[in-house]
Amino acid sequence: MKVAVVGAGLIGQAWAIVFARGGCEVSLWDGNSRALESAVPAIARRLSDLKDYGLVSDVDEVLKKLLPTSNLADALVGSHYVQESLPEVLELKVEIFGRLDALAPGGAILASSTSGFPASAFTQGLPGCQRCLIAHPVNPPYLIPVVELCGAPWTSSAAIEGARSLMESIGQRPVVVKREIDGFILNRLQGALLQEAFWLVENGYVDAAGLDATVSEGLGLRWAFMGPFETIDLNAPSGLSDYCKRYGGMYQSFEQSTNSRKMGQGWSPELVETLNGQRRETLPSSELAERQAWRDRRLMQLMVHKQKAAHAENVTKLSPEAERGR
Amino acid sequence: MKVAVVGAGLIGQAWAIVFARGGCEVSLWDGNSRALESAVPAIARRLSDLKDYGLVSDVDEVLKKLLPTSNLADALVGSHYVQESLPEVLELKVEIFGRLDALAPGGAILASSTSGFPASAFTQGLPGCQRCLIAHPVNPPYLIPVVELCGAPWTSSAAIEGARSLMESIGQRPVVVKREIDGFILNRLQGALLQEAFWLVENGYVDAAGLDATVSEGLGLRWAFMGPFETIDLNAPSGLSDYCKRYGGMYQSFEQSTNSRKMGQGWSPELVETLNGQRRETLPSSELAERQAWRDRRLMQLMVHKQKAAHAENVTKLSPEAERGR
Repeated sequence: MKVAVVGAGLIGQAWAIVFARGGCEVSLWDGNSRALESAVPAIARRLSDLKDYGLVSDVDEVLKKLLPTSNLADALVGSHYVQESLPEVLELKVEIFGRLDALAPGGAILASSTSGFPASAFTQGLPGCQRCLIAHPVNPPYLIPVVELCGAPWTSSAAIEGARSLMESIGQRPVVVKREIDGFILNRLQGALLQEAFWLVENGYVDAAGLDATVSEGLGLRWAFMGPFETIDLNAPSGLSDYCKRYGGMYQSFEQSTNSRKMGQGWSPELVETLNGQRRETLPSSELAERQAWRDRRLMQLMVHKQKAAHAENVTKLSPEAERGR
Repeated sequence: MKVAVVGAGLIGQAWAIVFARGGCEVSLWDGNSRALESAVPAIARRLSDLKDYGLVSDVDEVLKKLLPTSNLADALVGSHYVQESLPEVLELKVEIFGRLDALAPGGAILASSTSGFPASAFTQGLPGCQRCLIAHPVNPPYLIPVVELCGAPWTSSAAIEGARSLMESIGQRPVVVKREIDGFILNRLQGALLQEAFWLVENGYVDAAGLDATVSEGLGLRWAFMGPFETIDLNAPSGLSDYCKRYGGMYQSFEQSTNSRKMGQGWSPELVETLNGQRRETLPSSELAERQAWRDRRLMQLMVHKQKAAHAENVTKLSPEAERGR
C-alpha cells in the first residue's frame, strides 16, 4: 500500500507515523522545503518516544518507509491513498484538491484531515469528486485511534469503504459519519459535555477541579474502554431500553432544569427502540450478563493501570523504562 | 475510625468493602435478616475478585473488619460516620434518618447514598440536621473512586469536611457539590453527552457502534485520567482561555445546530475567566508544557494498557491470573 501524506506540519507528521508504523510506503510532501526538512527528525523523535512505551518496535524500520519529497507529482506516483493536512484555509483546500485530483492515480482515494470545512466545500465540481472525503484524526492519531470518515453527498461508498478498510488495516478505528455535520461526532459530544460543565460551574454547583475529578475518577473510567451506549446498555438488567425506561425521565428532567437551553421532545420511544436494536445486534440479550462481567474485569484492570501510572508519577520523574518496569 | 453501614443490599455491600479495605472498623446493619446473612458471603466473593487483580491484598484481613448486626443501636455504637443505603423510597429515608439521628453518637456524620432525593427532603427538622448529607457513590465504589458529597442548606461545613477527609483517607475521591441539584455532577454530565448522542443517531449521522467507538477509542481515553477542563486547558498553547477563544465559537455553533434544544447565552467571558483562574491555581501557566508532556506519557501508558487488556480478552477467556501475568 502506498500512501501520500500532503503537508508536513504536526498533523502530517503524525499521519506519516501512523501509516509508516502500519506498514505502508509513505511519501511525505510539503511545499515549504524547511517544513519538509525538519519533519523527518521531528518524526524520529516522536517514534523514539513511542518505542520507549512499546508502541513501536523498530524506529529505523518505520523511518525507512518514509520518502520526503518537495515534488507533488513525485509524491503521488503510485499512491493508493492521499491524506492532506494543510492549514485550515478554504482556498488552500480548494487549490490542493484540484491538484491532487489532477495528479493522483485514478484509483487513489483523496482524504483531507480538515475539521473546519465539509468535503462538499472544497471538492464540488472536481472530475474525481466522488473519490474525495474527510478522514478527520484526533490529535495525535498515533495514540488516539479514532478517525472520523465523512464524505460529501457525491462521495462514493467505494471511497468511504476504501478509507475505512485502510484505517482498520493500520490499527486505527474508523467511524463513518453518514451525513455532513459541523464537528463530526467527537467534538459535538465533547461540546455537549463541556456545555453542561460550564453551566454547572457558572451556577456555583462545583469548581473546575471537582468537575474534572468527577470525570477522571468516575465517568471517564468506563468511557476509556466502552462508549456511552454500551455503558447504559450494561447498566440495566435488560439493556438500553430498560435503562431508558428507568432513567430516561431523570435525564430529561436534568435537561429541563438546565436553564441555558430548552428541551426538545427528548428521546422518543422509536429512537430508544432503534438504538436498542443496534445494541442487540452487537450484543444479544443472552450475552448481557457475560459482557457486564467483562466490563467489571476491564474496570479492575484499568484501576490497576491507573494506580501504577499514578504511583510511577508520584515516586519521581522516572524514565519511561523505569515506569514500564514497575 | 468506626463506620456503620446501614442497609446490606448491593450498594451497602460495596460500601462495606470500601470502608473495610480502607482500614475502618465496619458494622453492617440490615433490618432484613436474610439480606444480612447473605451479605457477608457476597462481600467475600467480591473481595476475592479484587484480590485476583491486586486491588486487595488480604481478603480475610478485610473481612475481619466487618461486624454484621441486626440491631441498629449496636451497629451505631462508637461510630464516627454512618453510610445509609436503603432502597430509594422517601418515607424510608425520613424514617431511618430520624432513627440514626436519635441513636448515633453526637459527633457522628450521617450520610445517605441516595441519588433520588436531596438531603433537604429527608433531614429537615431533625435535631442533628446539620450533620446530615448525601455521599453519593458511583457503582461499584470499590472500583470507581468518585463520591459526590452534597449537603442540605443546613448541613455544616464541618460535616462536609469530615466526610471529605474520611473519603480521602480510604482512597476515594470526594467531590463537593456546593448546592443541591438533581443528578449531582456525574449524571448531569452523562446526561448531556447522552442527549447529544441520541440526537446524532436520531438524525442519521452515526450509529450506536460508531458513536461508542468515537468515545472508547477517542474522547474517553483522555477522560480516563484527566477531566474535560484539564483536557481543553492542555489543548491550546496558553490554556483554557486560549482554547475558548479558538474553539468556543465552534462549540456554540454546534449547540445552535442541534435543534433539539436552544442555545442560551453560551460561555460568557466572565465564566471563561473564572474557569481559567481555577485552572491556573491548579496548574500555573509556566507548567502547561510539562503537563502536556505528562498527558502524552499517560496516553501512551493507557494505550499499552488497553492493548494488553484487549489482547488478553482476544486470546481466550483467560483467568485473571493469566491476564495479569502477560
